[in-house]
Amino acid sequence: MKDSDSEFQAALSDNASRVTAVLDALMPLTDTPEARVVEAMRYAALGGGKRVRPFLVTQSASLFGVDSRSALRAAAAVEMVHCYSLVHDDLPAMDDDDVRRGQPTCHVKFDEATAILAGDALLTGAFEVLADPATHSDPRVRADLVLALAKAAGAHGMVGGQMMDLWAEKNHLDVAQITRLQRMKTGDLIAVSAESGAILGKASDEARAALHAYAHDVGLAFQIADDLLDVVGDAKTVGKATGKDAGANKATFVSLLGVEKARQQAAMLSEQAAGHLEIFGEKGDLLRQLARFIVERRN
Amino acid sequence: MKDSDSEFQAALSDNASRVTAVLDALMPLTDTPEARVVEAMRYAALGGGKRVRPFLVTQSASLFGVDSRSALRAAAAVEMVHCYSLVHDDLPAMDDDDVRRGQPTCHVKFDEATAILAGDALLTGAFEVLADPATHSDPRVRADLVLALAKAAGAHGMVGGQMMDLWAEKNHLDVAQITRLQRMKTGDLIAVSAESGAILGKASDEARAALHAYAHDVGLAFQIADDLLDVVGDAKTVGKATGKDAGANKATFVSLLGVEKARQQAAMLSEQAAGHLEIFGEKGDLLRQLARFIVERRN
Repeated sequence: MKDSDSEFQAALSDNASRVTAVLDALMPLTDTPEARVVEAMRYAALGGGKRVRPFLVTQSASLFGVDSRSALRAAAAVEMVHCYSLVHDDLPAMDDDDVRRGQPTCHVKFDEATAILAGDALLTGAFEVLADPATHSDPRVRADLVLALAKAAGAHGMVGGQMMDLWAEKNHLDVAQITRLQRMKTGDLIAVSAESGAILGKASDEARAALHAYAHDVGLAFQIADDLLDVVGDAKTVGKATGKDAGANKATFVSLLGVEKARQQAAMLSEQAAGHLEIFGEKGDLLRQLARFIVERRN
Repeated sequence: MKDSDSEFQAALSDNASRVTAVLDALMPLTDTPEARVVEAMRYAALGGGKRVRPFLVTQSASLFGVDSRSALRAAAAVEMVHCYSLVHDDLPAMDDDDVRRGQPTCHVKFDEATAILAGDALLTGAFEVLADPATHSDPRVRADLVLALAKAAGAHGMVGGQMMDLWAEKNHLDVAQITRLQRMKTGDLIAVSAESGAILGKASDEARAALHAYAHDVGLAFQIADDLLDVVGDAKTVGKATGKDAGANKATFVSLLGVEKARQQAAMLSEQAAGHLEIFGEKGDLLRQLARFIVERRN
């Protein structure tokens, strides 16, 4: 492992601990009859994960000298949306997954009704966190964060992507359609993570656009890497069932391009992503390393 | 029917048409593969209803001379949250209802996965609408609207109320617990509807508190009236299955207080609600009539 690699791993893991601590504090357990939904939210949100999206928020925010408390709250909000989407996507009526990050999924651990409600509350809570004055003293920043996240997560972003994914089970997609599906399903939330740092830092349009372009490429590379893991990874390392896409006869980047070409494509996107960060100089190094990390990861 | 009654009915129905038109415009159909989720959102949100919550928003906004475009957008956002909650509450894993407003529920008309996603997108869309500069030029107003709605709809508001409602199926609740449950499950969203007008109008704390107190009483009266309809109404008029609470052996205001006492309680709350509007003088007349209407309605 190179020095810069271990430095990056340390930064990623440090960020994950900080974000988890903020999430923990945002969702205190109560002793009221509705506590079960808070338990389920905590189960879904505190159970680990690399916290890649929060890392994008805090790293992009640090480019503009944003206060770390602001950045971590915005990061937590993005992660709450990500976790809600996992809880709902895992439901029997959706992808019907029993295992996530090596643990029973939320509806298996609790029950379907609780999982639906926990997802709803995580989504709602994300907007509550962003709109709270504790996140940023400027209300325009807060409203902009809400607007950007809602657009990325809604019917023409993440939810639309999941709808299209279900549609894809019965329709054969080409590369252009897969690219669009993945941009909506995972790319938009990844893009808004990086953009949130720019919003918090009241960055120039140029800087915001650079981060958007960077995150767009990172998001696609991330997805191709995910598809590759589904084909060449083993369930134990990946932490969830593998071979699902091929089993469902679903078109993916890998099924359409083949393993080798998909690998090349991911590497190319990762390099292209790093290229967008030129205007930030050395300050963009950790984001550059993230772009490399996501195509080299094993889980 | 008295003159003031027909005037009120006209105002309510006029408001419903305007809100429906705004909702229609906010959710245009596309010809993309994910259009199915937009169809389901439209089915859930455009299918009628009295639009009581939006009426509270626009009427309270009019007390402060708020631009009607602003008020209608905020009203539409609150209604999107209400409609999402109906879609998710009707799911098989939750209340398992097949009929709503005399029509098949969303998951019956479409399918469970689409209904879950449509609910998610309606909830997300509500915050997108509120945070959009088109709703109000002052970003502090937009952020405050988001914050108030998210609090009312989240784990310690509507979602918590639904969780407690599921818990109540296996636990016997007393009047204090039912009151708390209903405040969370329906009362908080009703209260935030009235408060949203005050937020839009940058009203004084006193005015905002008066509207909160008014809406709190209205919300509870509304719920007691709902429980009464479940017992004494017939399914055809009510537009959904009746007798469900008794069938589920669930404690309600009516089962705990009896029909007569429940009726008196609702009437008392309705009068008390109207009393909170004194500071608004004649301008509060339509809100006063709403307080009477909700305890006298037949569906």
